[in-house]
Amino acid sequence: MKGLQRLALSNRWANSLSDVFAFLEKPMRKVEEILREAVQSPVQEMTAMALHLLSAGGKRLRPALTLLSAKLAGEINHRAVLFAAVVELMHTATLIHDDVIDKADLRRGRATVHTLWGNEAAVMCGDFLYATAFNMLARDGDIEVIRTMAQASSQVCEGEVLELQLAFNPKITEEQCIEIARLKTAELMAAACKIGAMASGANGKLTDAVEIFGRNLGIAFQIVDDVLDMEGSVEEIGKPVGSDLLEGKITLPVRLTLDALPEEKRAIWEQRIAKRELTPQDAADLAKFARENRVLEQARARAKKFAEKALEQLMKVASEVNSSEAINMLKRLARFFVHRQF
Amino acid sequence: MKGLQRLALSNRWANSLSDVFAFLEKPMRKVEEILREAVQSPVQEMTAMALHLLSAGGKRLRPALTLLSAKLAGEINHRAVLFAAVVELMHTATLIHDDVIDKADLRRGRATVHTLWGNEAAVMCGDFLYATAFNMLARDGDIEVIRTMAQASSQVCEGEVLELQLAFNPKITEEQCIEIARLKTAELMAAACKIGAMASGANGKLTDAVEIFGRNLGIAFQIVDDVLDMEGSVEEIGKPVGSDLLEGKITLPVRLTLDALPEEKRAIWEQRIAKRELTPQDAADLAKFARENRVLEQARARAKKFAEKALEQLMKVASEVNSSEAINMLKRLARFFVHRQF
Repeated sequence: MKGLQRLALSNRWANSLSDVFAFLEKPMRKVEEILREAVQSPVQEMTAMALHLLSAGGKRLRPALTLLSAKLAGEINHRAVLFAAVVELMHTATLIHDDVIDKADLRRGRATVHTLWGNEAAVMCGDFLYATAFNMLARDGDIEVIRTMAQASSQVCEGEVLELQLAFNPKITEEQCIEIARLKTAELMAAACKIGAMASGANGKLTDAVEIFGRNLGIAFQIVDDVLDMEGSVEEIGKPVGSDLLEGKITLPVRLTLDALPEEKRAIWEQRIAKRELTPQDAADLAKFARENRVLEQARARAKKFAEKALEQLMKVASEVNSSEAINMLKRLARFFVHRQF
Repeated sequence: MKGLQRLALSNRWANSLSDVFAFLEKPMRKVEEILREAVQSPVQEMTAMALHLLSAGGKRLRPALTLLSAKLAGEINHRAVLFAAVVELMHTATLIHDDVIDKADLRRGRATVHTLWGNEAAVMCGDFLYATAFNMLARDGDIEVIRTMAQASSQVCEGEVLELQLAFNPKITEEQCIEIARLKTAELMAAACKIGAMASGANGKLTDAVEIFGRNLGIAFQIVDDVLDMEGSVEEIGKPVGSDLLEGKITLPVRLTLDALPEEKRAIWEQRIAKRELTPQDAADLAKFARENRVLEQARARAKKFAEKALEQLMKVASEVNSSEAINMLKRLARFFVHRQF
């Protein structure tokens, strides 16, 4: 897919996202207010660090999931707004820790927290955001919401460690790739949706449906994230193509690429992965093979399947839903998740 | 203080600690069981990392505070045991993150988690322990306990960042030194005591008293920690003397040492600290001056004052207390906190 055709699709997914955020403009502004208030601390540098990243923007996809799930089941009340902020705080904590670990210099176009304040302060800032999130939930007082978020948090960590545990293992299966995506990304999105519905006092059936919706959509999101790592050239995306593979991370699109190779070649590649011999050029070559042999389209098609499975859940509860507009917006969000180019 | 006299005192504080742990033997064994169960994860490496540090021992001072506070107000029931484990998990999370940041090779005589599994997995393991702790509290279901622990967690982070914010600032006051100690160390001990009392259904007055007890004792603990950093020689303690000062951390004993210098000399030292010019030899020299001029005794005397303030709280509620043995044991723990040599 090239030139105009790609651009046309690109416009459609970009419009999907802007529709969603136009719809959520007012509550999202409140989410931003709560985020700013939440990180006020008597320790000035703590606030400065937290605001540095929070005020740099970011797509706010997880808060959008919480708010739309709340709307689906009722109105976007102050608890939904609070929960949306909590989800974003937890996500931000993960980003700060990730950047320390990856020694990343830039995040959202700004210098990363640890490059400005040092690793120690950055790790503590991440921990502080987790603690602040649980503080906010404790003040709200709903034990089931706390349980949901604590469990999602531990699953995020389990997903990251499972990925490391399976790194450089070329025998990783598609199922294992998806399990990693579920744990490290999708469970937080499932939780974001679930507590949004809970904020609106949704019944068990509706809450379960949006939770499963969020989980499947989250898997779709992660697959596309992994596809993006193999799309484009160094010139286009401004970072080495195939950086996941270089770190030994065999994501679903990497798995599919290996499986698309002729058997002899596959054996050689797999051996080299296991021996940790791959160079940046190798990773770029494998990504090029994937692009030229439509493997990335195949991976996006998998993502689309998960997104469709997600939307099926919403159809199942359509009759009980408060707002058809919310369903509409969740559909657009799902379209963005599958077709996005960033 | 040298030779036999030091040894005699040393025996007394060491005995204090073993008395406490003999008293707590049975519930502490249950705490260990809960710790081992809590970190079971479908992701094997997560469990392996967590157990690596947890099974290496550690003094378990914070669980002891929780259990003794529970005993003070009633019996050591299963909730007290659970809370004791939660406090230790949160403390362990901090240790793992600290070791990643400090690039420490050893902890409790074992290779650190990050040297064996890498920084990424280690940071995630710390985050996992936090999340697991909140999971356990959510399952217990007491929102006030969750609030207490979330707040203590965020204060630990604030304390660490405040210390960094004031690093290399020679104008730091004694009050600021104590504020850092309170936030980074004492608030978690205050919380450990408070939730122990809550597990026994203590009334507000008793809960407040043990919380203030824990806070003051925690400040004493941190002051002595800082004293230990300046005591002994490289040969004795196996690490550079005055390592806090080398990192720019002006702890209470460092503050007192600077204040004990003749004015002209102090100005020179303060200038060199601000300019970050100190060498390991300088730090050792200042520590030597502190030892030879009884400044460290003076700092321990401050710690003792905080410990006495802590014990006063217990005296205030002595008539309402269930177990005079628990008071006795808390006194011994306080003695250890002040006189310990490790």
